[in-house]
Amino acid sequence: MEGKEEDVRLGANKFSERQPIGTSAQTDKDYKEPPPAPLFEPGELASWSFYRAGIAEFIATFLFLYITVLTVMGVVKSPTKCGTVGIQGIAWAFGGMIFALVYCTAGISGGHINPAVTFGLLLARKLSLTRAVFYMVMQTLGAICGAGVVKGFMGKNQFTTLGGGANSVAHGYTKGSGLGAEIVGTFVLVYTVFSATDAKRSARDSHVPLLAPLPIGFAVFLVHLATIPITGTGINPARSLGAAIIYNKDHAWNDHWIFWVGPFIGAALAAVYHQLVIRAIPFKSRS
Amino acid sequence: MEGKEEDVRLGANKFSERQPIGTSAQTDKDYKEPPPAPLFEPGELASWSFYRAGIAEFIATFLFLYITVLTVMGVVKSPTKCGTVGIQGIAWAFGGMIFALVYCTAGISGGHINPAVTFGLLLARKLSLTRAVFYMVMQTLGAICGAGVVKGFMGKNQFTTLGGGANSVAHGYTKGSGLGAEIVGTFVLVYTVFSATDAKRSARDSHVPLLAPLPIGFAVFLVHLATIPITGTGINPARSLGAAIIYNKDHAWNDHWIFWVGPFIGAALAAVYHQLVIRAIPFKSRS
Amino acid sequence: MEGKEEDVRLGANKFSERQPIGTSAQTDKDYKEPPPAPLFEPGELASWSFYRAGIAEFIATFLFLYITVLTVMGVVKSPTKCGTVGIQGIAWAFGGMIFALVYCTAGISGGHINPAVTFGLLLARKLSLTRAVFYMVMQTLGAICGAGVVKGFMGKNQFTTLGGGANSVAHGYTKGSGLGAEIVGTFVLVYTVFSATDAKRSARDSHVPLLAPLPIGFAVFLVHLATIPITGTGINPARSLGAAIIYNKDHAWNDHWIFWVGPFIGAALAAVYHQLVIRAIPFKSRS
Amino acid sequence: MEGKEEDVRLGANKFSERQPIGTSAQTDKDYKEPPPAPLFEPGELASWSFYRAGIAEFIATFLFLYITVLTVMGVVKSPTKCGTVGIQGIAWAFGGMIFALVYCTAGISGGHINPAVTFGLLLARKLSLTRAVFYMVMQTLGAICGAGVVKGFMGKNQFTTLGGGANSVAHGYTKGSGLGAEIVGTFVLVYTVFSATDAKRSARDSHVPLLAPLPIGFAVFLVHLATIPITGTGINPARSLGAAIIYNKDHAWNDHWIFWVGPFIGAALAAVYHQLVIRAIPFKSRS
Repeated sequence: MEGKEEDVRLGANKFSERQPIGTSAQTDKDYKEPPPAPLFEPGELASWSFYRAGIAEFIATFLFLYITVLTVMGVVKSPTKCGTVGIQGIAWAFGGMIFALVYCTAGISGGHINPAVTFGLLLARKLSLTRAVFYMVMQTLGAICGAGVVKGFMGKNQFTTLGGGANSVAHGYTKGSGLGAEIVGTFVLVYTVFSATDAKRSARDSHVPLLAPLPIGFAVFLVHLATIPITGTGINPARSLGAAIIYNKDHAWNDHWIFWVGPFIGAALAAVYHQLVIRAIPFKSRS
Repeated sequence: MEGKEEDVRLGANKFSERQPIGTSAQTDKDYKEPPPAPLFEPGELASWSFYRAGIAEFIATFLFLYITVLTVMGVVKSPTKCGTVGIQGIAWAFGGMIFALVYCTAGISGGHINPAVTFGLLLARKLSLTRAVFYMVMQTLGAICGAGVVKGFMGKNQFTTLGGGANSVAHGYTKGSGLGAEIVGTFVLVYTVFSATDAKRSARDSHVPLLAPLPIGFAVFLVHLATIPITGTGINPARSLGAAIIYNKDHAWNDHWIFWVGPFIGAALAAVYHQLVIRAIPFKSRS
Repeated sequence: MEGKEEDVRLGANKFSERQPIGTSAQTDKDYKEPPPAPLFEPGELASWSFYRAGIAEFIATFLFLYITVLTVMGVVKSPTKCGTVGIQGIAWAFGGMIFALVYCTAGISGGHINPAVTFGLLLARKLSLTRAVFYMVMQTLGAICGAGVVKGFMGKNQFTTLGGGANSVAHGYTKGSGLGAEIVGTFVLVYTVFSATDAKRSARDSHVPLLAPLPIGFAVFLVHLATIPITGTGINPARSLGAAIIYNKDHAWNDHWIFWVGPFIGAALAAVYHQLVIRAIPFKSRS
Repeated sequence: MEGKEEDVRLGANKFSERQPIGTSAQTDKDYKEPPPAPLFEPGELASWSFYRAGIAEFIATFLFLYITVLTVMGVVKSPTKCGTVGIQGIAWAFGGMIFALVYCTAGISGGHINPAVTFGLLLARKLSLTRAVFYMVMQTLGAICGAGVVKGFMGKNQFTTLGGGANSVAHGYTKGSGLGAEIVGTFVLVYTVFSATDAKRSARDSHVPLLAPLPIGFAVFLVHLATIPITGTGINPARSLGAAIIYNKDHAWNDHWIFWVGPFIGAALAAVYHQLVIRAIPFKSRS
């Protein structure tokens, strides 16, 4: 099943390129390419672990929105940003929660917590279509509940005045820039996810499976550092939809398509980049 | 002792769901469910390691309060927050100390440093009732001493003027919101603790035992980012009680019940979620 | 091929110096010094992994400039720095991106993302000259594209007004100080890279291969904390050139030589320090 | 040589206390207590690794002072702290450099970079007296050079006006509070170092050897968050002496004893706590 390919380690790596092309490298010994997931897997519907995974995605996205939107509220509410955790604190809230939640749920559901991640992994055939749709529904429901609890804590008036953590394109930026920012931002995240979950690299590079949740969380943190001034940073359609539904004002809904189209395009590009360029899957000889 | 169950890895994980339900998965091979701890374990009272664990909890909670309350004092004292480490620095102090202290004491006492964590693990039968009570007493004593040393450094007048790092519900929030914030915040922390100490996941996912102290510390950091504006963030009854005793003003005592009831409810919910949903322990066939 | 040498572990390490000098230490057992890379390796030009590595360097440097320059723009644009992620947030953007990108590309290209790193590793004969030149070209092209996309998002006028993230020596510092800051800063980075990729230490110290991307990212973060007020911090000629080309103003070009000469000297010093002092390669008896 | 003792894992750990006291626990199997280092080890003076370790301590302390004092200068120089990395950025510079430098030098010299750490490990007989004295001399020389280079970059007048990063007790705090802050702060650091380098725990808890440099760096970061407002935070006599010599003003010299006495007391307390309470070494039966 797994193709032989030129596996070489370069640059700062331990072994420079020595073996003739087409020879299976020694570091391949523990590596087994998993077969693509079928689109429909009737068996998983009868398994508790399928529903457990959905519940875990729901709870994780609920906690994600709860902590992050509450952090945004605390910063926006204060007249002087110096007396708050600041915009940088907001970026830490988003990235840190993804780190902690991926750590907690990776072994249960794969730790997506984001429909764009689910979509990217679906394109790479890492999970079935049934499961992908189920995850996206549970993520969206969790996001709505998380933003709703924050609204309950803050009171309706205050929540609406403070913007409810909803995403929209900021003044001074075109919709095209906003869409572009979402595409590249999601590419950064989903590319990191693919790198962290690459079965071949896990077998070879010891830091890959061990640190995995950390760079994924950092990717989210970094994209927020860069694009909060542009779109508030979505790169997660469940987060954007959950906040938009609870906030429910026209100016959030007008830009809302950007926070679905952008992340899905970015995730698709990351899937293509990883499968075509990094893994070169279509060009491998199959044995 | 350990039940066979449907153990499957999903989404971004290495193996998609292949095996029929009820078959022991290959990744279970190193996993052994520990038996529930007895409520009373007379043997441990004769063991040095029992008392050593209590001393370690005392010292850790002492250092935790010392560093965190001193950081709070430094921020509150300054007329301009920009000349301090800021509210975000306070959040780092709480989360970072938990990271470092869990790292240092995990192998000695389990690294609780928090009666809510001890309570959650007791509900999951991970330690005996005797030990749980002993830990909680030592944690509270350590917290009182830690806050007391800060008072000694700052002077009584200044310490009281600056609020002493005590928890209370902020203006503009109801007691119900404060209680809710403590419940969900402690849920985030204790859920992360359960995920990090899950014997089954440790056997299967390489990042779980290796990173463990890091996501636990991050969970504390993140909850502080979100709820410092609401309650100052307790999620640790020993921390709240220690600061309240040394501060000793009515407005801290009036809300004090929230910082015991909230964390204990949050910890209980996390224990239920982990044991019932994630591990599905009651529904497993035992062999 | 690998020389026997006195390998001892000191200070806080597990074994104090016991064995007579010249005896191969027990911890050497898994260690194999890789042979120096040839200057020209015709075989690698026929290998897909060579071009894949170049593409990975291109994409990584593209994403690096995109996120970091966009973060700089967001901070510079705001009239009050408190409403932004701040200068510290800029330092996190640079360091965090290097962490995430080294994590993602270490197994593909070695994860250089910086011509100074490539140059240092070339001096240590870790990669061929062909590959080094190819990497530097791809890094520079990626940097230009990354800064260009940010210009597209911000608009030409605004991008130029805000300084475009280009490096130059700040008022109040001499060109000598700027050059010195670039030399020592790059030394910190490349020394960390050598420590993280030392095959001998990887075989002996468990934290070395597992954490590797983290201290490399932190090194970049730390140098930015210290030298943003002096030069804006280059320590990466591709980053400086990419920003300078897109910004294209005289005052950036006047100092531009500093951001090539400084990093290359710093990287060379780090290579000399690591090979001569730490590994003592020229003085080893070869067997 | 290694005593049998009651080794038990508690709380959140995998195995509750089951085995009778005095039985060697199963997890001891890979553990070997190293013998105490002799005070004088003539052999090490003839070993290249001894001098290499000293050079590594010199370079590491040089880089430590260079980056941290430069960061302090950048923050102090700016009229508004919001346009700088802030006090929190200073804390990151100190903690982050210790993380990166311990990572880089742990396998070469043990990664002390601090005479207080060397002193604590000497008390625990982890290195010889000869080596401890040699390390302290090299650390101090490195610190002087690091602060000196910063003075060269900033110019003499500006460096002196800005305080030169020297430690002294701040207005509003007694010398007793300053000494106390140095003692407890150094205790936090050296206790973390002992936990991270405990050979027994390394054999048993997988996170101990792998994360080691990270909690050590965090400990330094956290102590800075708390005590920068009191003493500027020493907890490292080489850092305090290096800055004081280059700054060379009376008010820094008047308090200077605090930054030697405090750290050495704190390190001694940490050594006593670890050896007597955590490891209970004097009470073990030897076999």
